[in-house]
Amino acid sequence: MSKDQSTDHPLERLVFFSDAVFAIAITLLVIEIEVPDLPKGAPVEEFLHELGGLIPSFVGFLMSFAVIAAFWVTHHQAFALASRFSLRMLPWNLFLLGMIALMPWVTGFLSSNLNQLVPTAVYFGAFTVTALLNARLAFIATEIAAADPDQAAAARLIRMRCIGLAAGAATALAASFLLPENIRFMGLLAVPFWTRLLARGARSARASAPAEERPAE
Amino acid sequence: MSKDQSTDHPLERLVFFSDAVFAIAITLLVIEIEVPDLPKGAPVEEFLHELGGLIPSFVGFLMSFAVIAAFWVTHHQAFALASRFSLRMLPWNLFLLGMIALMPWVTGFLSSNLNQLVPTAVYFGAFTVTALLNARLAFIATEIAAADPDQAAAARLIRMRCIGLAAGAATALAASFLLPENIRFMGLLAVPFWTRLLARGARSARASAPAEERPAE
Amino acid sequence: MSKDQSTDHPLERLVFFSDAVFAIAITLLVIEIEVPDLPKGAPVEEFLHELGGLIPSFVGFLMSFAVIAAFWVTHHQAFALASRFSLRMLPWNLFLLGMIALMPWVTGFLSSNLNQLVPTAVYFGAFTVTALLNARLAFIATEIAAADPDQAAAARLIRMRCIGLAAGAATALAASFLLPENIRFMGLLAVPFWTRLLARGARSARASAPAEERPAE
Amino acid sequence: MSKDQSTDHPLERLVFFSDAVFAIAITLLVIEIEVPDLPKGAPVEEFLHELGGLIPSFVGFLMSFAVIAAFWVTHHQAFALASRFSLRMLPWNLFLLGMIALMPWVTGFLSSNLNQLVPTAVYFGAFTVTALLNARLAFIATEIAAADPDQAAAARLIRMRCIGLAAGAATALAASFLLPENIRFMGLLAVPFWTRLLARGARSARASAPAEERPAE
Repeated sequence: MSKDQSTDHPLERLVFFSDAVFAIAITLLVIEIEVPDLPKGAPVEEFLHELGGLIPSFVGFLMSFAVIAAFWVTHHQAFALASRFSLRMLPWNLFLLGMIALMPWVTGFLSSNLNQLVPTAVYFGAFTVTALLNARLAFIATEIAAADPDQAAAARLIRMRCIGLAAGAATALAASFLLPENIRFMGLLAVPFWTRLLARGARSARASAPAEERPAE
Repeated sequence: MSKDQSTDHPLERLVFFSDAVFAIAITLLVIEIEVPDLPKGAPVEEFLHELGGLIPSFVGFLMSFAVIAAFWVTHHQAFALASRFSLRMLPWNLFLLGMIALMPWVTGFLSSNLNQLVPTAVYFGAFTVTALLNARLAFIATEIAAADPDQAAAARLIRMRCIGLAAGAATALAASFLLPENIRFMGLLAVPFWTRLLARGARSARASAPAEERPAE
Repeated sequence: MSKDQSTDHPLERLVFFSDAVFAIAITLLVIEIEVPDLPKGAPVEEFLHELGGLIPSFVGFLMSFAVIAAFWVTHHQAFALASRFSLRMLPWNLFLLGMIALMPWVTGFLSSNLNQLVPTAVYFGAFTVTALLNARLAFIATEIAAADPDQAAAARLIRMRCIGLAAGAATALAASFLLPENIRFMGLLAVPFWTRLLARGARSARASAPAEERPAE
Repeated sequence: MSKDQSTDHPLERLVFFSDAVFAIAITLLVIEIEVPDLPKGAPVEEFLHELGGLIPSFVGFLMSFAVIAAFWVTHHQAFALASRFSLRMLPWNLFLLGMIALMPWVTGFLSSNLNQLVPTAVYFGAFTVTALLNARLAFIATEIAAADPDQAAAARLIRMRCIGLAAGAATALAASFLLPENIRFMGLLAVPFWTRLLARGARSARASAPAEERPAE
């Protein structure tokens, strides 16, 4: 029995494959940032001007690095509670990875046209779809834990974080239609707002519950 | 003995290396999708028009994501039944990975020229070769399981899925010569048709067999 | 208890994800090296001339390969001493990986404009930030080991190496403003100087301490 | 003791990191193959003509896929015999990975100028250096096994394969200066010749030795 738990190879392989896709997508983001090539002996100002023109690319890189990292962290935490492989994880995990694999393209589209309506809406639209798939998968992965009194609080916390990501992404999508053009991508700030709010709710529910063992996050 | 089973490092490394190649190939697909770069302040219609022009690229991305994912799933399931490394796995696994590594190119060729005869035939031709290699490898990996009364049904199911993939790919290849140009790539639909048909056959044979333990898929 | 130590899945996954990002970043460096394409039958001299023009790209490749490898080695060594996952590792590890993922771009910028002030300063500036994040993370990862008399010396050695990397990077950054243009990137040599100096200090402190078990590095 | 052997984390991480670099390099090869983009409705002959022009790229892809796979296989086999991490593995492994990471560039250079002297010599020169590093590393990794009567024969076989790879690469390098231009890259055939010859020698030495347990390759 303990052997089953420590060597559930199909689950390990699923997690491993997912990690590889997360890692590749997060590292490919950099490919969308152009490398400026100036004539030899160009003055410092020209270099700084070129770098200034790349600011939207760096903004996109930072945003998407944070977004993919947030999805990886929730995947990491949800599957730390998953003690067994279930066939139901497979399609949702693959849909999620498909959206993660699209992130470098979505980021490139946003960076090349920062604050334009269509790219911003496409970016946050893709983010919202990804967050919904991520929440669906996290609910499946934490199903057994949620029914276990010792792990229920931890499972609830993770689920709330996933719902927070989805609520934040949806808010940012709506905001991209409502905000003035020069701060259109700022809707992203809804994500930390929602995830913290919901995580705090889950934690306070937990604090008021009787003492329980904290799972290894 | 139980130690052998839980720490067959050569097998683990083969599986790991394969997973990495699958993950990289599936994530590199996105590189073939061009990022539209419009002048600042371009109207919404122009953005939508540009996105419309990318539909073939997205179709190719989706198709190949599904195809690589299907190969990964059968690899995952076949090797979950493989309890030991065998040198015979090595060449077939490498041939399979070579074809998987080619998928981003084949996909780019299809997307740039969607529904043209040559790219469609090349795509489904490569798919057919990959599916045949995949089936050969899955038969080797499930050899021991197929001879074990407790696992024979599971092995048969996986093998039937692999044969279904190959039959579907071959049908799509034939269809790319026969279908009218504007729906030429639709031969892909033969894949779910064949895999479900054959999997159903394997499952009904299993249902009529005496009760047996279901393997951890 | 021994089971906990050998299968701390969250820690393993963190290390695994990090390794994947290190591996991808180090392999993507090659993408920044242009492939010369000469007309068929071009004379040998023209090929050699083209290769000569790529020397800055190869210098950049070598430098960044060594830099990423050095970070990977310290990560490897610090986490070999980390017996447990801690939530505090997570943000620092992600910040570090974000900087590692930027390395191919920073390298491309340096190679395209070798010895120019801005690209050299950007390169060593990014290197310094990465080294500081790496040191912060290594200190967290070796915290338990540093408090354990059997492992304290090993932990100190690793920490000194990380500080050496940061001191070397900062020296190279300062040197890029001070050195004459044609040897501007040579500040890199401060890195082996500092790391060896500090590692020697840590080792001599260790040699004078009472005999202790050497950890498996 | 058995625990030590099954969970030598530093060794596992070295192997894992290496596998990731091998996998990424082998999958990046495809990026060097151009995707032909023909006008809609171009005749079949034009597609075939374009594909014909890509034959050198496919030759390069196949060659380098085989070469990287051969290095991965010897790495796999040598480290299957390595029971413990040794610090001496680290630099040689990193040098080897650096050369593996260069393979996509070397391949692109060869493919763009197939059979030209300089690219062919550069290709086989890089191959020779890689094979020498690989042999050095394999000798270190199989050191303990070579001193163990039960594993000595297996260690010798792997070492002979590595020497065969180096001899084959060096022969191909020499041949690139001697062969007529239109079959210049054919020196590659020296590789299977040498590896088989030396492996046969190792195997016949083994067959004449007293019976011994075959290691899990």
